[in-house]
Amino acid sequence: MRVYSTIDEANQAVIEKIKNSQPFLLDVVPAKSVIPELNGKVLLHAGPPMKWENMTDPMKGSCVGAVLFEGWAADEAEARKLLEGGEVQFMPCHHVSAVGPMGGITSANMPVLVVENKEHGNRAYCTMNEGIGKVLRFGAYSEEVINRLNWMRDVLGPTLSKVLKMMDGGLNVNVIIAKAITMGDEFHQRNIAASLVFLKEIAPYLTIADLDEKTKHDVMKFLADTDQFFLNIMMASAKAAMDASRTIEYGTIVTAMTRNGHEFGIRVAGLGDQWFTAPVNTPEGLFFTGYTQDDANPDMGTPQSLRHSVLGLWRWSLLLG
Amino acid sequence: MRVYSTIDEANQAVIEKIKNSQPFLLDVVPAKSVIPELNGKVLLHAGPPMKWENMTDPMKGSCVGAVLFEGWAADEAEARKLLEGGEVQFMPCHHVSAVGPMGGITSANMPVLVVENKEHGNRAYCTMNEGIGKVLRFGAYSEEVINRLNWMRDVLGPTLSKVLKMMDGGLNVNVIIAKAITMGDEFHQRNIAASLVFLKEIAPYLTIADLDEKTKHDVMKFLADTDQFFLNIMMASAKAAMDASRTIEYGTIVTAMTRNGHEFGIRVAGLGDQWFTAPVNTPEGLFFTGYTQDDANPDMGTPQSLRHSVLGLWRWSLLLG
Repeated sequence: MRVYSTIDEANQAVIEKIKNSQPFLLDVVPAKSVIPELNGKVLLHAGPPMKWENMTDPMKGSCVGAVLFEGWAADEAEARKLLEGGEVQFMPCHHVSAVGPMGGITSANMPVLVVENKEHGNRAYCTMNEGIGKVLRFGAYSEEVINRLNWMRDVLGPTLSKVLKMMDGGLNVNVIIAKAITMGDEFHQRNIAASLVFLKEIAPYLTIADLDEKTKHDVMKFLADTDQFFLNIMMASAKAAMDASRTIEYGTIVTAMTRNGHEFGIRVAGLGDQWFTAPVNTPEGLFFTGYTQDDANPDMGTPQSLRHSVLGLWRWSLLLG
Repeated sequence: MRVYSTIDEANQAVIEKIKNSQPFLLDVVPAKSVIPELNGKVLLHAGPPMKWENMTDPMKGSCVGAVLFEGWAADEAEARKLLEGGEVQFMPCHHVSAVGPMGGITSANMPVLVVENKEHGNRAYCTMNEGIGKVLRFGAYSEEVINRLNWMRDVLGPTLSKVLKMMDGGLNVNVIIAKAITMGDEFHQRNIAASLVFLKEIAPYLTIADLDEKTKHDVMKFLADTDQFFLNIMMASAKAAMDASRTIEYGTIVTAMTRNGHEFGIRVAGLGDQWFTAPVNTPEGLFFTGYTQDDANPDMGTPQSLRHSVLGLWRWSLLLG
């Protein structure tokens, strides 16, 4: 590892690592096939390390859903007993080159996007976007949610895997980002343009993939209807960029900012795997009718402000050449 | 027909007609099947009425291409002889509820988009976008151009017709416009978002259409690669809106502004089919290396400034509810 003579020089190297990132979406695979830590009853979560008893309801709901999805329990009561009994081990997504939206709950058999930063050679992983409404990332775990997760495992994941392998070298994420920036996406709340560009890249290959017509249709329809689909691709891309930048010794730039509903944690480029944590804030928001600020959950989720910082650098590198 | 007591009242009615337009893309059909005037050797063109001898080279080139496409001549020399000999009749697109990009040259067997203004019940037609590079609308007529036109007649047109018929009531164009406005499209030089939204509406149906896989792939690829595809849908939609507004007696609002490379023509809401013409301007533009302002062609093309006026009204009606 190169040693830099000044902190400014090291930080400039961190920034270069971020700017020069070349994320490519290579594949979609079961999480356990690329994250060996996901053997036995292990769940990944957003934010710095935490315990079940410190989780708030949405993250606990996500855990219940993941336990049901994995078949570790037959119903909610059994799932909660298992979780409360300490039989499930928790681990931050960030410890295994992963990120996840909201609760970030990720289990062995969930399909994950595989993004490689070709400039640096490292990879990052993220689950796929489930769409809106009742979804696991917000803590829902009804039959509808589990059925969709099963479909994503059995149909969506393998289909996208097949299509991505038809593309020589995978899908260049920067090209999609550059186009979508000019259409107003900021890659957090707004991914509509990037999701459309992703669909148009996928569609011609999907049309001739060696798959039955119903599978092709269902995947095409899901991608057409899910205008936040690109969010998770962006998250894995940002993670791949930031993990590359974490290799620069002495860099003082923050490379992760993430919450788990209990604590807010950051990591710093030159300080390896160390977390710095503080109690998390509760966002002040707008609420559906009948809900107030008292119902708000302390903040949780993997890089958000960070994603915008990463994007800020990327924007310039992509727009200016 | 209702008679309005003041011009202001009539003009307000014209504006309401434009704002309330509900364009739906219903079908893609051979031009001759909906424009009976296209029997025998007839070509539609952009702008007010004109003669072959007044056409500039790009429009003449388009005519040569159309003659070759229709098989009225075996080669360019024969085609020019036919055209110079007065054996081809010319007619403005605007006389037959049609519009066309650039030269606007439209012949019997070219497929046209069929847009119905459901608020008023009238229909408008426009050829499909050929993509970029060597294309008929700019005056190119090489084998590559004719081959693409043949493919559009034999494959693209019938395929989109089939897909549009799978949609109950066709495709609501306003929904696409509203989404694309928020992504920066202005529907003349920039249709990238609208073309992507169009693709995502089409793709799931195309996937299960009763067609062979190669056809599905080729059409999906063409739509994915053609980011100006929506332009011509917008043109037919604008025409459908403006033709509805032309039914208001005494309205003084301009409802068509169009050039043919020789004259600039306008029509006015309350003045029926009458044209008001003047010599056309030559735009001052940027040029590829080796070309200068001296190479510029006098302006031609069907509603452009107008499309923006229409769009201005539409924007407000779509964005404000």
